[in-house]
Amino acid sequence: MSIGTSQLLESLKWRYATKKFDPNQVIPESKWEALSESLLLTPSSYGLQPWKFLVITNPEIKAQLKPVSWNQSQVTDCSHFVVFTIKKNLTTDHVDSFIKRTAEVRGVAPESLSGYRNIIVSDVVNGPRSLTVNEWATRQVYIALGNFMTAAALVGVDTCPMEGIEPANYDKVLELPTKGYATVVACAAGYRASDDKYAELAKVRFPISDVIETLA
Amino acid sequence: MSIGTSQLLESLKWRYATKKFDPNQVIPESKWEALSESLLLTPSSYGLQPWKFLVITNPEIKAQLKPVSWNQSQVTDCSHFVVFTIKKNLTTDHVDSFIKRTAEVRGVAPESLSGYRNIIVSDVVNGPRSLTVNEWATRQVYIALGNFMTAAALVGVDTCPMEGIEPANYDKVLELPTKGYATVVACAAGYRASDDKYAELAKVRFPISDVIETLA
Repeated sequence: MSIGTSQLLESLKWRYATKKFDPNQVIPESKWEALSESLLLTPSSYGLQPWKFLVITNPEIKAQLKPVSWNQSQVTDCSHFVVFTIKKNLTTDHVDSFIKRTAEVRGVAPESLSGYRNIIVSDVVNGPRSLTVNEWATRQVYIALGNFMTAAALVGVDTCPMEGIEPANYDKVLELPTKGYATVVACAAGYRASDDKYAELAKVRFPISDVIETLA
Repeated sequence: MSIGTSQLLESLKWRYATKKFDPNQVIPESKWEALSESLLLTPSSYGLQPWKFLVITNPEIKAQLKPVSWNQSQVTDCSHFVVFTIKKNLTTDHVDSFIKRTAEVRGVAPESLSGYRNIIVSDVVNGPRSLTVNEWATRQVYIALGNFMTAAALVGVDTCPMEGIEPANYDKVLELPTKGYATVVACAAGYRASDDKYAELAKVRFPISDVIETLA
């Protein structure tokens, strides 16, 4: 049922921020479907999923995004380019959709979830812990990014997370403002070019004692 | 080398936010070491790792954290309780440590990385894209949370992500302010109790067409 720890670590060490993708290698349909489902399965606070993931394979749209991505070639050379967006200014309507969906999936009456609904509304919609709801949603999106990179590595797909993008220009190209979404971060997925010199570089991490402290 | 997509999806579907841990089941040492290394291997922007992960197994410290965690029993019942913190107010010193480490690991002269160093300083330390450096670091921490939950699921370890905590009180208990770190979020890890009724509930996600849009 679960995998061995050496398999896990091997995949995580194999992963690196791919700088040069092979433009001729496409992620097979069935593998992409699984990664797509992995994105869908990303955990979120209360399960609210305050996001949409745009998967771009269209060459023209990729070409439009490249100049607003510090001209990085990963955008156009990768197989599937994923743009992680938040649903902006989440309202009680979103919470109600989520409660409705929960009732549907679990076969219970929505009213039986009203206590839970009210907790979510007061905690999230009305501004949780001094954060704006958009910043809260943005943080959630990074869970999806972390999950996605790890899931991809495990099935042998390369990725390159990209914060070096111009979110407002992404929004324009993708016509997000009218739809109520906003770009946060992107991630290219595909296969490393055989001559990507970054693939050979040793992975740099601080010594584990600097990063992990155990209070036993 | 990589795993099959059905194995990946099986693990992601098996995962849920565990509400009740079995307090008698401890994650075996070798398995925890692998999860610890998974945390260390978390990708971050520029590789800067603006964080520290505190792993708490000490029952007294867990007991002190429970009342500032909405009294959730996961804190005390889990095997390993992980507190995700940011390194506060990142300065050029941090970037220089990272550059020094990179030079060390890759066997190059630190001076050869000075261009890269200057890009990082101007992009991150001097406030990237209208974000404070602390909010930037906070988002990075959520990558670690996403990676950790997925890695744990793959090796058969249950988790419960916890935003329902009082970060300022965590900081006090863990004496973080003097060390320059600040609590962001936590995640309990261990094994589900056999009577955790949440384990049986159907997973709720919006229809995939609501969450993923393909531009082909």
